[in-house]
Amino acid sequence: MAETINRQWLLAARPEGMLNEGNFKESSSPIPEPGEGEFLGKTLFVGVEPAMRGHMLETSAYAQTMNIGDVIRATGVSQVLKSNHPDYAVGDLVQHSCGFQDYSVSNGAGAVKVPAGVSPEAVLSVFGGTGYTAYYGMVEVGEVKEGDTVLVSGAAGAVGNIAGQVAKIKGASKVVGLAGSAEKCDWLVNEIGFDAAINYKDADVAKQVQEAFPDGMNVFFDNVGGDVLDIALNNLALNARVVICGGISRYNKDHKVPGPENYFNLVYKRARMEGFIIIDNLHRADEFAGAMTPWIEDGRLKYQVDVIEGFENLPNGLIRLFTGENKGKQLIHVGEPE
Amino acid sequence: MAETINRQWLLAARPEGMLNEGNFKESSSPIPEPGEGEFLGKTLFVGVEPAMRGHMLETSAYAQTMNIGDVIRATGVSQVLKSNHPDYAVGDLVQHSCGFQDYSVSNGAGAVKVPAGVSPEAVLSVFGGTGYTAYYGMVEVGEVKEGDTVLVSGAAGAVGNIAGQVAKIKGASKVVGLAGSAEKCDWLVNEIGFDAAINYKDADVAKQVQEAFPDGMNVFFDNVGGDVLDIALNNLALNARVVICGGISRYNKDHKVPGPENYFNLVYKRARMEGFIIIDNLHRADEFAGAMTPWIEDGRLKYQVDVIEGFENLPNGLIRLFTGENKGKQLIHVGEPE
Repeated sequence: MAETINRQWLLAARPEGMLNEGNFKESSSPIPEPGEGEFLGKTLFVGVEPAMRGHMLETSAYAQTMNIGDVIRATGVSQVLKSNHPDYAVGDLVQHSCGFQDYSVSNGAGAVKVPAGVSPEAVLSVFGGTGYTAYYGMVEVGEVKEGDTVLVSGAAGAVGNIAGQVAKIKGASKVVGLAGSAEKCDWLVNEIGFDAAINYKDADVAKQVQEAFPDGMNVFFDNVGGDVLDIALNNLALNARVVICGGISRYNKDHKVPGPENYFNLVYKRARMEGFIIIDNLHRADEFAGAMTPWIEDGRLKYQVDVIEGFENLPNGLIRLFTGENKGKQLIHVGEPE
Repeated sequence: MAETINRQWLLAARPEGMLNEGNFKESSSPIPEPGEGEFLGKTLFVGVEPAMRGHMLETSAYAQTMNIGDVIRATGVSQVLKSNHPDYAVGDLVQHSCGFQDYSVSNGAGAVKVPAGVSPEAVLSVFGGTGYTAYYGMVEVGEVKEGDTVLVSGAAGAVGNIAGQVAKIKGASKVVGLAGSAEKCDWLVNEIGFDAAINYKDADVAKQVQEAFPDGMNVFFDNVGGDVLDIALNNLALNARVVICGGISRYNKDHKVPGPENYFNLVYKRARMEGFIIIDNLHRADEFAGAMTPWIEDGRLKYQVDVIEGFENLPNGLIRLFTGENKGKQLIHVGEPE
């Protein structure tokens, strides 16, 4: 550990409209010393997710708000370099809230050791909050069952591609993804096992969705909101479940964004629309991992990470979620283990 | 039965914008003769409901569409005057789809005999579709339980006032109604047993709702939609249930009506919004009646009908639902039993 400097990205300005580099400020401080009951971690990988923009606002909807000048809060995998904590030994890999910085001190709250034989990339994608969000949302909120027809928006995103795969594994008869490029659509169908994919930038998305679901869809798993939600609501089967996981089309808007003008189809179709946040269910992490591990081991559930390199790219890693560049879970590779 | 003429109101023009007298045309025909397996009924009372406007459109969302020139479809109570049907005797009172006319012939499909000791007014309000809608929506969709806080919109309407009373009987700690006049609000609180009522025509409805539910509401039972739905969505408790029963603020609009711009609070509050139509559950009528009858007998559940007089007022009875004039179930008294 030759380094003595801890590089950090701080919250410089709260987001207004599209997130941009001006929201972040580079800084540095000495590498901190862990106190009693704490450990020092070196950041290896950071994972980013759309909800982080919300946590940068003055009033976060459900998480503690960051102050201007705080290190950007983020989950990642660190290697323990020093430990005064009985549960963590030097060399352990730990998933925790490391933030946008090279080094962090933790008292272990919210930290989970990376199991032997599991890569940091897997922990930050299919295991951990991302995978559990997909599983819980599709299985418990969406109540997907054999023979269901399923549409997933943001299907090439971190959660979306797993949600669609989980639906297939659970016996859905047809899983269709909405994604933002022909290349992503191709990937969903030819590598991830979706039955079909629709490029939401096409002119005739509504028509394509209708043709894909002539009898309506049983489950819509929404990561996007906006027009896509309206289109789905117009194509529900009776007793459909609309799972509201995200609304990335809304997050960079400062003005009010119109809601689904046809929400009343929930009545005509006796359907429900339900939101959830996985943090309510993280005590069930072992259960989720237990369900998904065999699928990963036998190759039915694939996971995809989109890794960019370097501490200097941490803000860009977050920004590119909103420009739709990532395919699978966006990670930033910050450091090598010692 | 001295009459030979059957007066009828026909669909003259499909509704565009606000329903008005031009949508209806008065006509007459000879009183029909019941065939084999049919009975002839004389219309005593007709009940109207907001969904009827939708059935007058070219494409009804869930019912068979009426054609121009058809008798306006409506449910009412008739007295059997002639019968070739083994289950119905002359003199029986029957709830069925009688339509906007003095006399109708029925083969008994969808018909239910009015039980002895129950008035036509009760059958067309608290018993029958209206009461069952309130009960099923509040108990099974809203899952109201002891200690819940509950907001009902359109609370002075046929379904709303019963839904609020059911919530109270089920142990809700606070039931608040939204209604369109000070007089209706007074009625809800002082006669029907709501804990509070808010006049939705006040300038500060959002503030009043927020003050009434400082910790958010557990159940919102919506008959109205529009701004009221947005206000409720801004004041949900965690795991709230939003029951979409109706959306009367939308029904007379030809342009697209904005949806709830803050539907995403369903995520932040891990809440759900669900629609239903009671026709899916009418096979459970005996169960619903069984639950509600003791409440009516012991005076805990009151029912209110708003009766206007005369065949000539059938269209007006329907129109006044949309001008908010009715208090409780709107009935039109068409004829006397013979």
